[in-house]
Amino acid sequence: MPETTVDTVACIGAGVIGGGWVAHFLAQGFDVRAWDPAPDAAEKLERLVDAAWPALTELGLKPGASRDRLTVAATLAEAVDGAGFVQESAPEDLALKQKLLADIDAVTAPDVVIASSTSGYGMTEMQVAAKTPERLVVGHPFNPPYLIPLVEVAGGKLSALWAVEQAAAFYRRVGKSVITMDREVPGFIANRLQEALWREALHMVANGEATVEQIDLAITDGPGLRWPVQGPMLTFHLAGGEGGMAHMLDHFGPSLKSPWTRLEAPELTKELRDAVVAGCDDEADGRTIADLVAERDRAVIAIQRAVGQARRG
Amino acid sequence: MPETTVDTVACIGAGVIGGGWVAHFLAQGFDVRAWDPAPDAAEKLERLVDAAWPALTELGLKPGASRDRLTVAATLAEAVDGAGFVQESAPEDLALKQKLLADIDAVTAPDVVIASSTSGYGMTEMQVAAKTPERLVVGHPFNPPYLIPLVEVAGGKLSALWAVEQAAAFYRRVGKSVITMDREVPGFIANRLQEALWREALHMVANGEATVEQIDLAITDGPGLRWPVQGPMLTFHLAGGEGGMAHMLDHFGPSLKSPWTRLEAPELTKELRDAVVAGCDDEADGRTIADLVAERDRAVIAIQRAVGQARRG
Repeated sequence: MPETTVDTVACIGAGVIGGGWVAHFLAQGFDVRAWDPAPDAAEKLERLVDAAWPALTELGLKPGASRDRLTVAATLAEAVDGAGFVQESAPEDLALKQKLLADIDAVTAPDVVIASSTSGYGMTEMQVAAKTPERLVVGHPFNPPYLIPLVEVAGGKLSALWAVEQAAAFYRRVGKSVITMDREVPGFIANRLQEALWREALHMVANGEATVEQIDLAITDGPGLRWPVQGPMLTFHLAGGEGGMAHMLDHFGPSLKSPWTRLEAPELTKELRDAVVAGCDDEADGRTIADLVAERDRAVIAIQRAVGQARRG
Repeated sequence: MPETTVDTVACIGAGVIGGGWVAHFLAQGFDVRAWDPAPDAAEKLERLVDAAWPALTELGLKPGASRDRLTVAATLAEAVDGAGFVQESAPEDLALKQKLLADIDAVTAPDVVIASSTSGYGMTEMQVAAKTPERLVVGHPFNPPYLIPLVEVAGGKLSALWAVEQAAAFYRRVGKSVITMDREVPGFIANRLQEALWREALHMVANGEATVEQIDLAITDGPGLRWPVQGPMLTFHLAGGEGGMAHMLDHFGPSLKSPWTRLEAPELTKELRDAVVAGCDDEADGRTIADLVAERDRAVIAIQRAVGQARRG
């Protein structure tokens, strides 16, 4: 089903992530059918949408968007009936996902894409029990799905290219920033990066090297202020001063050997060095270091003000 | 020298970090004396202050603040003469830092604190050649030092408590957010977290798992949007839904065993689990999950708008 004709979305699983998707699709003006086997699912879902709605209203609801367009379905089959896109957000349990995706697949029209919110399983291992696995893809959002734009899209070995492309196009249509991965990597991209940081943080707490509060302050008042405007690569492109990433790697490269984290660094080969430098040049897309510094400075000031106001309420 | 009587700061080393410190102290209304052995240091420093000044003006200069209060000194001794605080920001080379800190120590009045901007060396290993090592401490900033509030302060084995406390008080006086560490950990806190993420990113590029641009987009449009308002710990406190960090660890704990990064996870013992849960409760400081969700949502919306405006210029 072409993504432009979708008017109804089915959300299977209505916890924090599934409920966040429900709120997002409602705000985007869709009919939404939710299904979750938990006995208190309907009330929890209502509280989740309650919590999200002020933010979505502030961002601007699409024409026709209404909370009244949510139906909590009594069965899985009822939820997917007539849906043009299915988003599965069940708990992170491989056997459960394999069975649930097969169940969804069995009752959903064959031209409808079914996307899984899985945080890290590959679709290859999840689609094994489905009869029509070609329309199954990963569509991994970030919490909360109604605010954070990123969605990582990846197919499994049995997924069809049309399903991957349609999922990416559909997410873009509903305002998402999409990364389509051409290979399956456990944890995809953002969760691998986030997980490395999280594990180092847990090691530090376990070893008495930092408290929970120090770890959060180190990020919110430190590198975290740069990351919404420039990712880790462009950040270090600027750390190199006028010489950019090339100077940074040639000058600070040896610190990769320092015991600054428990994660071993890769060998900084000429190929890796050149790939990172070229990637930064591509991404800078003609902006000089001075342009990027000015952009970062404007953004960091505005981010600090925004956070200060949000904390004051 | 009590930090409240400091009116002149010496900045030794005037690259990206040293020059950023110069701009910060000028904007805070100090006389600043800079020294750097590079032949083109004065011109580079002028360009650095040029680049920083619009941001500092926008933030608000302190009374009396003026770029005219910068002197580029001809010698190290001239730079520290009369200075009430010394900030060293030389290249990251242990032997160089040991010698330079001993040289600064030899010409600086004995009651003046000398702080090193080192990104990861402990003061214990850097202070070995100094005659009065007790006033030497680490004062590690983040790029750019004139905008990012975080400074990590840590003494070495021969540092005196008064020097650590005076450095922390001085940085707070000049608007910084200070973490005082009671033990030396290579890379301190923020750089260990940032370095784990950076190394995972380099591995992904080296293995063709993600491009430089995908890595940056995964952060700027994903978890990076949350980190200025809630660090990694509070972020996952909210990922647990109404059950908070306790539910998150009990539910997602097993994913610590997933191959989501090359960094091995610590054992999630009951002690570690309880320490992280208690730390989040302390940090939440009475704010419910619903309060934190509302605060995060307001902040993420404002951060996205701020970044969008900064990019448009």
